[in-house]
Amino acid sequence: MSPVLVALLSGPDQKGLVSKVSGWIFENGGNIIHADQHRDAQAGVFFQRVEWSLDDGSDPRATAAAFEQFGDSIGMKTKVAISGDKPKVAIFVSKFDHCFHDLILRWKAGEYPCEIALIISNHTALKAVSKNYEIPYQYISVTKATKADAEAEQLALLKQEGIELVIMARYMQVLSPIFLDTFGKPVINIHHSFLPAFAGAKPYHQAHSRGVKLIGATAHYATPDLDQGPIIHQNVAQVTHRNSVEDLVRKGRNLEKITLAQAVSWHLENRILVYENKTVVFD
Amino acid sequence: MSPVLVALLSGPDQKGLVSKVSGWIFENGGNIIHADQHRDAQAGVFFQRVEWSLDDGSDPRATAAAFEQFGDSIGMKTKVAISGDKPKVAIFVSKFDHCFHDLILRWKAGEYPCEIALIISNHTALKAVSKNYEIPYQYISVTKATKADAEAEQLALLKQEGIELVIMARYMQVLSPIFLDTFGKPVINIHHSFLPAFAGAKPYHQAHSRGVKLIGATAHYATPDLDQGPIIHQNVAQVTHRNSVEDLVRKGRNLEKITLAQAVSWHLENRILVYENKTVVFD
Amino acid sequence: MSPVLVALLSGPDQKGLVSKVSGWIFENGGNIIHADQHRDAQAGVFFQRVEWSLDDGSDPRATAAAFEQFGDSIGMKTKVAISGDKPKVAIFVSKFDHCFHDLILRWKAGEYPCEIALIISNHTALKAVSKNYEIPYQYISVTKATKADAEAEQLALLKQEGIELVIMARYMQVLSPIFLDTFGKPVINIHHSFLPAFAGAKPYHQAHSRGVKLIGATAHYATPDLDQGPIIHQNVAQVTHRNSVEDLVRKGRNLEKITLAQAVSWHLENRILVYENKTVVFD
Amino acid sequence: MSPVLVALLSGPDQKGLVSKVSGWIFENGGNIIHADQHRDAQAGVFFQRVEWSLDDGSDPRATAAAFEQFGDSIGMKTKVAISGDKPKVAIFVSKFDHCFHDLILRWKAGEYPCEIALIISNHTALKAVSKNYEIPYQYISVTKATKADAEAEQLALLKQEGIELVIMARYMQVLSPIFLDTFGKPVINIHHSFLPAFAGAKPYHQAHSRGVKLIGATAHYATPDLDQGPIIHQNVAQVTHRNSVEDLVRKGRNLEKITLAQAVSWHLENRILVYENKTVVFD
Repeated sequence: MSPVLVALLSGPDQKGLVSKVSGWIFENGGNIIHADQHRDAQAGVFFQRVEWSLDDGSDPRATAAAFEQFGDSIGMKTKVAISGDKPKVAIFVSKFDHCFHDLILRWKAGEYPCEIALIISNHTALKAVSKNYEIPYQYISVTKATKADAEAEQLALLKQEGIELVIMARYMQVLSPIFLDTFGKPVINIHHSFLPAFAGAKPYHQAHSRGVKLIGATAHYATPDLDQGPIIHQNVAQVTHRNSVEDLVRKGRNLEKITLAQAVSWHLENRILVYENKTVVFD
Repeated sequence: MSPVLVALLSGPDQKGLVSKVSGWIFENGGNIIHADQHRDAQAGVFFQRVEWSLDDGSDPRATAAAFEQFGDSIGMKTKVAISGDKPKVAIFVSKFDHCFHDLILRWKAGEYPCEIALIISNHTALKAVSKNYEIPYQYISVTKATKADAEAEQLALLKQEGIELVIMARYMQVLSPIFLDTFGKPVINIHHSFLPAFAGAKPYHQAHSRGVKLIGATAHYATPDLDQGPIIHQNVAQVTHRNSVEDLVRKGRNLEKITLAQAVSWHLENRILVYENKTVVFD
Repeated sequence: MSPVLVALLSGPDQKGLVSKVSGWIFENGGNIIHADQHRDAQAGVFFQRVEWSLDDGSDPRATAAAFEQFGDSIGMKTKVAISGDKPKVAIFVSKFDHCFHDLILRWKAGEYPCEIALIISNHTALKAVSKNYEIPYQYISVTKATKADAEAEQLALLKQEGIELVIMARYMQVLSPIFLDTFGKPVINIHHSFLPAFAGAKPYHQAHSRGVKLIGATAHYATPDLDQGPIIHQNVAQVTHRNSVEDLVRKGRNLEKITLAQAVSWHLENRILVYENKTVVFD
Repeated sequence: MSPVLVALLSGPDQKGLVSKVSGWIFENGGNIIHADQHRDAQAGVFFQRVEWSLDDGSDPRATAAAFEQFGDSIGMKTKVAISGDKPKVAIFVSKFDHCFHDLILRWKAGEYPCEIALIISNHTALKAVSKNYEIPYQYISVTKATKADAEAEQLALLKQEGIELVIMARYMQVLSPIFLDTFGKPVINIHHSFLPAFAGAKPYHQAHSRGVKLIGATAHYATPDLDQGPIIHQNVAQVTHRNSVEDLVRKGRNLEKITLAQAVSWHLENRILVYENKTVVFD
C-alpha cells in the first residue's frame, strides 16, 4: 500500500483554489483519491478536504510538511494527516458505560484509526473491565472542592500520554474553560437530547414532560459555553405516550452510542472543520 | 358493511375498566374490532380507544348515545364516533400552499373520512385553485387593525358551516385566545421546527444559524400559548453544512406535509386524546 | 411490587373474546395494565396480549395455570409468563462478535429479563472474553463430517441447561431441520440483508453488485427453510456509490446489532405471536 | 447572476485528472463552486461532477462546447449543462395520480429546473386536471394489440416536442426495448417495492404475504430488463401486522412520491452518472 495523505484546508475564498491545490499534488507526484470542498458564499470562506496517495518511494512526512507550507503560502490554514498514524485518544467516563463499551469494541474491531491510550473516570466502577480491555485506567475523584486539582491531574496525564483527542463518553462532569483552554485539543461530548432542545440537566425528564414524539442525541465539540459547542452529528428516535422516562433513557442509550460513534469516526478520519461555531463534515 | 363505532374514553383509573367496557359492548351485541388503552400510573388516569362493529339491524346512533351514557356512569369522559359520519373541516391557509394541496389531494384520494367544507385565507392567491378543487373559498383580510373583526367573521363562517376541525395549513397568522375559546373545537397547526427547539418566527433561519444536523416539523393542537400546544406528531430530516436556509425551507416543506397529513389522519380517525398538554395517540 | 402476568392468546375469532378475557381477570382479582389484540379478518384468527397485576397476597403461579386452563376452555392457545421469571438463553456465535458483545452488554445493563446461561461456539476466539463476562462457554467444532454429532452435543447441552431460547448471533452455520425439531423451542437468527432480498450467502456482496441505495438486516425465527422464517424486525441504512463491500459490512454491523437486540427484547417480553409464517408483534 | 456550468465526466482513471479539469477551468476564467468525484478502483473508472461560474461577459455556450472538447481530449465522456436551460420533460401516467400531482406541484413551486411540456396517458382520468395545470395532455390508448402503434405515436410526440426526459409516474405499462432504444434518452421509473425484493407485479401483495416489517419504493432508470435498471434512490417505511394490503398501498404512496421526486431532482441537477447498471449520485 502506498502512503496516503489527508489534508484539511480552510481560509478566505479566492479564485483557483481547487486548481492550485490539485496542481500542487499532481506536480509533487500525488494521485488524488478523493477531494471535497465547501464554499460559504456569505462568509467568503473556503474549505477543502483532499486525500491523495504518494508514489511508493516518497517520504510522506516530508510531503506533508511541504504541503502544509504550500497551504500557508496560499493563505489557507492547513493540517495534514498521514495514513497509518494513530493519534492517542483518552476516554472520560463516569458510571454510565454504554458509550464506553461501544467505543472500545468498535476500536477493537478495527473501526477507529487511533490508539485508545487512557481511560479517566471519577468512579471506580469500570476499573476491572478496563483491565480486561487492557487499557490504562486512572481513577480521579471529582468533587466541587477538588475539581481544580482533579482537572490539573487530568491535564498532566493527557500531556504525559500525548493525547490528541478527549472523548466524553457520558462523563457526567462539566470540563472547565481553563481545562479546555489548557488542553488546547479537541474534546468531543455526547449530549442526550437533540440540541438546542432540552439543553442542561435531565433532558429525558424534560422531553417526557413536554410530551415530544422524538427524542435525540447530539455529538458536539465541547466549548466553554455548556451544550453550545459546534454540532457534529444528531440522531432521533420515536417515542410514544407509553414511554416512561426510563424508556426514554433506554432508547436514548442506543442513540447516544451510534451518534457518538459516528462523530468520533468522522473526527479520526479528518473529515471535520469548525468555523463560526458550526461544523463542515466531509462525509 | 355493518356499522362501526369508535369510542374514546378517559378518566380516573379504577380496577376493571377494560372488563366493564368490553362487557357492555358484548352485552349490547357489539363485536370489538380493536381496543387500545393507556394507563398513566403517575397521574392515575386511564385512556381507552375501542372500535366495535354492530349487528346489521342495530341503530348506531342510539347505541352511541347509550354508550356515552354508560361511559359517564363509570366516571369516564366519553365520545363516540360513527363510521360513515364525515365531520366538516376548514383549512386556514396563507400563501404557502404545499400543505394545502397535500391535504386536499389526500382527501380526494379517499384518505380522510371528512368533508373539506371551507377554505379561509388572508390572501387571494389560492382562490382560483380552490375553485378547481370545487371547495368553497373565503378571502378574509387580516391586518393588525382588523384582526378582531376578521376573527369574528371567521368564527361566524365556521359556525354557519358546522365546522368540527380547523387545520392551519401554514396559515401565517396567530389565532387569538378569544378565537380558540369561542370556536371551542380542535385546531391543528403545523410548526416548521422540531419543537421545543426554534419556537417562534423563522425557525429555519434559527436552525441554520445554530448549525444543527437535523431539521424538523411538529404538528400540534393550537392553544393560547403560542407553539406550546400538545404535540401530535414530529418528523425530522438530515441537513448538512452545504444546505442554505433556502434548502432547509425546501426540505422542510416535505416534512411539514407528511407531519401535518399524519396528524390530521389520526385526529379524523379518533385516535388522539389530550391531557396535561400532551397527547395519547392510539395509532 | 405486586406480581404481574403476561398472557399471549391466539385462536379462532369469536364474539366477546376481549370481554371474556378481561372479565376473567377482573373476577380473579387482577388489574389489567395493558392489553392489545389483533384480528386477522381474512384468516379468522384472533390474537391477544394482556398484562395484568395481581393482588399482593395472590399466588402468580396458580393464577397463571388457572388462566391457561381458562384460555383452553374458550378455544384459545394460551401461554402465560410471570414477572420475575428469567428464562435461560443460549447464544450461538462464530467469529463475528459484534452482536455477541451487544447482547451481553444489554443483558448486563438490565435490558433483558432472562439469564444468558450458555455460549456455544464453533470457534475458540471468544472463549477468554466469555470468561471475563462470567458466562459458561462451550466450544463445539462443526465440520461437514461432524455436523450431526455436533448438533447432538449442542442439543444435549441445551436440554441439560434448560434453555428456552437460542439466539444465533451471527452464527455462521445452518441449523438442521432435525436440530430445530428436536430443540422444539424458538431460535432467533439475524440475517444481514433486508429479506427477501439477497437471501443466502454474501448478501453485502450481492447488495453492492446490484447497486442498491439501502442495505438492511432482518431478525427472524429460524425454520427449516433457510432465510424463510417469520420476520420479527427489519432495519435499513443508506449507502452510496462511495461505499465498498467493506463499508457495507461495517454499516451492516450497526444494523445487525440493533435489529437483533430489538427482536430479542420483544421475544423476552412475550410480545410476539407467530402464524402463517408471519409475526404479530405487540410492541 | 453570472452564468454557471455543470459538467459530468466519466472515463478511464488516470493520474492528475482533478488537476487537469480544475486547471482548464481556472485558465478559462471560471471559478469552481463545487466539485465532487468518484474513483472506482476495481473498475478503474473515474467520475466527476464540477460546477463553476463564469465571468459576467463570457459566453456560456461557447465555454460549454470548449469544455466538452477538452473533456474528449483527455479521454473523458463529457456533458455540460448551462444554468437557466430548462430541458423539456414528459410525464407518462395512468390512473394512479399521486406522483403525477406531486411532480407538477413541485415544479410549479420552483423545485425543478425543467419544463413539463407534455403529459401522456393511457386513460382520460387526468385530462381535466391537466388542463387546470395548463400542461398539454395527450391520451393514447394502449392495448396488447395497439401497443406498437401507441408507442410509435408516443415517440413521435416526444420527438416533436424535443423531450429530454420521460418520467413514468406510476405509468402501469412496460415500455418496450424498441421504445427505449428509439427514444434514446433517460426514462425514470418508480417501482413500488425496495428492489430487488418483490420485483414484478403486485409488490404490496407480495410484501404483505411475506410478512415483511418494511415496505419500500425504488426510483430507477428504465432498461429493457424490467425492474432491473440502475437504482437512483430508495426509501422504506415501517409496517406492522395490523396493516392490510390497502394500508401498504396508502403508505406506499408517500414513499413513491418522495422517492421519485428526489430522483427527478437529482437527474435535473445533473447529479447522476450511470455505469455497470449502477448509479453514481453526486448529492
